[in-house]
Amino acid sequence: MPVFLDSTAATFEAEFAALLTAKREDSPDVDAVVSEIIADVRALGDAAVIELTARFDRLALSPETLAFSPEEIERECTKVPAAERDALERAAERIRAYHVRQMPQDVHWTDPEGAMLGWRWTPVSAAGLYVPGGLASYPSSVLMNAIPAHVAGVERLVICAPTPDGKVNPLVLLAARLSGVDTIYRIGGAQAIAAMAYGTQTIRPVDKITGPGNAYVAAAKRRVFGKVGIDMIAGPSEILVIADAENDPDWIALDLLSQAEHDESAQSILVTDDAAFGRAVAAAVDKRLETLERRAIAGASWRDFGAIITVRDLDEAAELSNRVAPEHLELCVADADALAAKITHAGAIFLGAWTPEAIGDYVGGPNHVLPTARSARFSSGLSVLDFMKRTTIARMTPAALKAIGAAAETLAISESLEAHGLSVRARLDRLNGDQP
Amino acid sequence: MPVFLDSTAATFEAEFAALLTAKREDSPDVDAVVSEIIADVRALGDAAVIELTARFDRLALSPETLAFSPEEIERECTKVPAAERDALERAAERIRAYHVRQMPQDVHWTDPEGAMLGWRWTPVSAAGLYVPGGLASYPSSVLMNAIPAHVAGVERLVICAPTPDGKVNPLVLLAARLSGVDTIYRIGGAQAIAAMAYGTQTIRPVDKITGPGNAYVAAAKRRVFGKVGIDMIAGPSEILVIADAENDPDWIALDLLSQAEHDESAQSILVTDDAAFGRAVAAAVDKRLETLERRAIAGASWRDFGAIITVRDLDEAAELSNRVAPEHLELCVADADALAAKITHAGAIFLGAWTPEAIGDYVGGPNHVLPTARSARFSSGLSVLDFMKRTTIARMTPAALKAIGAAAETLAISESLEAHGLSVRARLDRLNGDQP
Repeated sequence: MPVFLDSTAATFEAEFAALLTAKREDSPDVDAVVSEIIADVRALGDAAVIELTARFDRLALSPETLAFSPEEIERECTKVPAAERDALERAAERIRAYHVRQMPQDVHWTDPEGAMLGWRWTPVSAAGLYVPGGLASYPSSVLMNAIPAHVAGVERLVICAPTPDGKVNPLVLLAARLSGVDTIYRIGGAQAIAAMAYGTQTIRPVDKITGPGNAYVAAAKRRVFGKVGIDMIAGPSEILVIADAENDPDWIALDLLSQAEHDESAQSILVTDDAAFGRAVAAAVDKRLETLERRAIAGASWRDFGAIITVRDLDEAAELSNRVAPEHLELCVADADALAAKITHAGAIFLGAWTPEAIGDYVGGPNHVLPTARSARFSSGLSVLDFMKRTTIARMTPAALKAIGAAAETLAISESLEAHGLSVRARLDRLNGDQP
Repeated sequence: MPVFLDSTAATFEAEFAALLTAKREDSPDVDAVVSEIIADVRALGDAAVIELTARFDRLALSPETLAFSPEEIERECTKVPAAERDALERAAERIRAYHVRQMPQDVHWTDPEGAMLGWRWTPVSAAGLYVPGGLASYPSSVLMNAIPAHVAGVERLVICAPTPDGKVNPLVLLAARLSGVDTIYRIGGAQAIAAMAYGTQTIRPVDKITGPGNAYVAAAKRRVFGKVGIDMIAGPSEILVIADAENDPDWIALDLLSQAEHDESAQSILVTDDAAFGRAVAAAVDKRLETLERRAIAGASWRDFGAIITVRDLDEAAELSNRVAPEHLELCVADADALAAKITHAGAIFLGAWTPEAIGDYVGGPNHVLPTARSARFSSGLSVLDFMKRTTIARMTPAALKAIGAAAETLAISESLEAHGLSVRARLDRLNGDQP
């Protein structure tokens, strides 16, 4: 049973606060192990990666077979049935069309003092994408990570995707090919992150690493952060649906379950202004849970972290949603636009009942790599900007330096940074004719 | 003596690689201590912060005196001499004018299938800025961190600035007031970072923490990353100057020294196409080092990490600079624009000999918080965007869902995510009239 909350109850604030702070994930402390693995890979390179892959993935590799060969990729790709190939291509096309619009503009202008100011965007030279093996090996995630990088203009794009016991997901390889990936290494875990960050004899280091992974991968990303850029450290997924009584309870139940089926730690929350509708959705969830393939996972998530919250009105719904800052937010209400205007923190908004969250996971266009665990308070989903960086630009003229140089000199002196001040003063003196 | 390299020498590649990988900072491993401090603050709140401040800063505080009172701030601000106040105001105004231009646009459009797609930007609700105490207590850094947050629309902006032995820098308080900061806490170290991330009885938690700090602060920021957003982990500063022979060696020497005087670990590199000019700059540096106030620091930095590299031509200079990915890059050459077009990795570019880097530290307008230690390969200087986040938006129409829904369903099934597929299928069935 999920929790049922009523915003008019005296106990509501405490219950809602408990929901917000519930610890959904028991991250094992793997930091010591990961630290050793990274040190091994830095010291021994390929040999460490190969040894660790034999140990953890039960797969014997050599430097020559760390990466899939073009022939292997081609062979695996031909195994993908036409319907899935078409769907992947459709998804890739739509994701690309969305992300192309994110390309930032370079800007420069001349200010009243005559100084030219502005900035320029350039892509990261090389990016590495981690793709988990086994259950969570999602071709859609390959598209969502690799296409923004490719659109950004990243020159060299590599994937590390472990293949435990040699099991390959052909859809992952096809998605990589559709996304412009150059090289796919069949390695995983902290060793893959270390190899991409520091390089080995065979694997050239990259500048940015993105993509989801287990606790070892997350700890390794945290450790290499600074040496390379990383995306967020993803936590368990969540959805919040704000729905009025004019919805089909079964649709909303399926939307809640499509989050719950990801992971026992996932969280699905319904906020409604109609208590009876809330109960109808709960019943619909229970009915679907009888037959759902992943009912064990989805049922555990719904039981442990699910919630149905009845509110006075939609304004209150928006307010509570902003406190949750959900990764995914569905607004299934008559005037979704008006409600959306009140949302200040959310990873992605899905407007109206015809926009199930699952559309966004695959073919909507926006990225499905989104801030989890309330981090939409301060971070955004993956985008083209994650694979670019901005260089600021300034050019003073003698007149501009004359206008603002003295202020710089004053501040430099106040900070006891004499050379800073002198570097400005030497030029000002020249302008004033005090020096040749 | 700095190293002198010549790109035509047989040993150049090895020497340049050594320069790139030289370990400039010996970060003490303070992670265990920091972990304890964070746990203390989480468990005990104010009491822990007060105890730690007494121990490390030799300052007795109570919950009531954790923050400066408005009267104290007012009193300290009146101590600032007029020239410095004017300079700070000038700097604040220019920094604000630059950063206002970074405000991003919301975008939405309707695609060929009739789906509405786009994104919206919203500010972080609360941001915390760390300002180091003692030697590195720079009012200019307050402006550079707080103004972008204020421009972004951050509602609540707080500062933690330790005052060891109760010593206050009035300029820091004035800079905070000029930047729209709401509250200034006189606490520092890992305890300040923990208090801002997790909150105490007195200090409300923030969503994003930025600002430089010592090894303890850096380790604490790394640890709270995920709970809150953080900016980069800053390393020692660096400058690379590309200059031809048409420059005054003394100007270039001062620019190199203005980086070197920051820190013994700072790095200053001159790249020139004229060996004689390189020697002239080296001589000018030595001359200035005889009298510079911070000659001990600047001298050590120049001796240990300084470099003068002679190259065949400016194309080669750009190429080497891109491998360094310097935080600050000065282009003191005849056609600085043409050379800038060849730069792919740099935090900030200063065009022409009339633009000393120090201008950018104070009054140029662009931010002086820039990616260090080669991280300009993958990251950008601080900007308004660091205090905002993007929410993606999608709205399907029935027709749009009909056009792309089947592809989503196919991919969901291929990923064994049945509820995802069903959430789309239930709606498609309604459209097809298969269900009421």
